[in-house]
Amino acid sequence: MSFAALERRLNYTFANPALLQQALTHRSHSARHNERLEFLGDGVLNFVVAALLYERFQNIDEGDLSRVRASLVKQSTLADIAQRLDLSGYLRLGEGELKSGGFRRPSILADAVEAILGAIYLDQGFEAVRQVIAGLYRELLDKVDPDTQGKDAKTLLQEWLQGRHLELPQYQVVCIHGVAHDQQFEVECAVPAFDIHIRANGSSRRAAEQTAAGQVLEQLLPLSPVDIKRRQAAGKARQQAERLAQFKATHGRAAQGESR
Amino acid sequence: MSFAALERRLNYTFANPALLQQALTHRSHSARHNERLEFLGDGVLNFVVAALLYERFQNIDEGDLSRVRASLVKQSTLADIAQRLDLSGYLRLGEGELKSGGFRRPSILADAVEAILGAIYLDQGFEAVRQVIAGLYRELLDKVDPDTQGKDAKTLLQEWLQGRHLELPQYQVVCIHGVAHDQQFEVECAVPAFDIHIRANGSSRRAAEQTAAGQVLEQLLPLSPVDIKRRQAAGKARQQAERLAQFKATHGRAAQGESR
Repeated sequence: MSFAALERRLNYTFANPALLQQALTHRSHSARHNERLEFLGDGVLNFVVAALLYERFQNIDEGDLSRVRASLVKQSTLADIAQRLDLSGYLRLGEGELKSGGFRRPSILADAVEAILGAIYLDQGFEAVRQVIAGLYRELLDKVDPDTQGKDAKTLLQEWLQGRHLELPQYQVVCIHGVAHDQQFEVECAVPAFDIHIRANGSSRRAAEQTAAGQVLEQLLPLSPVDIKRRQAAGKARQQAERLAQFKATHGRAAQGESR
Repeated sequence: MSFAALERRLNYTFANPALLQQALTHRSHSARHNERLEFLGDGVLNFVVAALLYERFQNIDEGDLSRVRASLVKQSTLADIAQRLDLSGYLRLGEGELKSGGFRRPSILADAVEAILGAIYLDQGFEAVRQVIAGLYRELLDKVDPDTQGKDAKTLLQEWLQGRHLELPQYQVVCIHGVAHDQQFEVECAVPAFDIHIRANGSSRRAAEQTAAGQVLEQLLPLSPVDIKRRQAAGKARQQAERLAQFKATHGRAAQGESR
């Protein structure tokens, strides 16, 4: 197989194509597989992405740098890069993995990307692999918002509301389906200011809360500032109406109590 | 303060000594502190140690490479390197940290080592910092035994016994002192083949087991092959004697049972 198209997409030509061949070889295929290269590539990728973020974001602290980096080197991001490189067709897998669709599996794709980076480091050294990584990540880095990238939905929702001085979301388990080892949690996320109540399922309480928070965010984020103010106002009015109703109910009961 | 002695120990001279100054500045001292440099240095250290191990150990798999690397970049190893560099006297700490002995704290020392490596990368690039790291780790790498480095005491003890086809150690909680949030566990580790029974304490069951296993290893590792054979034989004889006694007791009881 010719590597020309892949090398073009990587913007890199191997001096020793056997290294690329090895990087594309899963352990199910043969003994000369890519796992050691993946170890090396994981290291260089983590470092180069750290250095790229360090240069680009001069004013964010190391906690934010770590969070953003984690989101850029995680398996799903690497699997996306593998798709862009059209790696599937180049992978060398054992028969079992082939039949079970291993060439589409995110872990196998992500590992192969790392292994290719390790192979480039061995092939032509640090500066070569730094340039390849910078090229692969150019668009992703342009889109990074260090305030939000890599944060989970619950954190983003909380920060969104806090930034507008609004009441925090409330999470509640509505019900739990299934038996001990295979439970499904149904959770409600309520945002009082916007009168939003959204339910979601998950295999853990936390997972269900994250899904619900994400769906709430999908409703909140597209809102225009005017919308937000209107819905804040509607929420406040509703709360006041509820308080009034509650007061009347209590007052009514008290009056009944007195009349007895 | 002159950095000459420190630079000599690092075998590196900064083009821009302000970077070294910043690397030695704890966040308690001033706003231009070392935490971002530490983020960068952590990345380059992890990668360079990975690359050094990859080159040196051609035949170990990525799992072992990861384990050995983790032991070489962990806080206590970095704090040892800081001691060798005599970093304490150069650290710039806030008053509170100074008074509480921050210049001796392993986390502060380890972070400063990483920050210095980040500073060297910014100062003169990858090849410069690679050489400094290779120099700092030369002796440590010469001593690495990839079969054992970074393994915990329980794992080492188990492997030592398995390698000699001996019965595995048995762990038992002897007693638990203290109340819920502040418990001390006393655990016994027994190695039947050597008739060893060692007790140790720890703030968790796991910690106590590790300490006990470590003390058992301290008894086993110095043994000569002859000693080992003799103690294996003694252990076997003891086991046989116990089985015989048990048989007699059962037989005795059975006889008594029959005679009733």
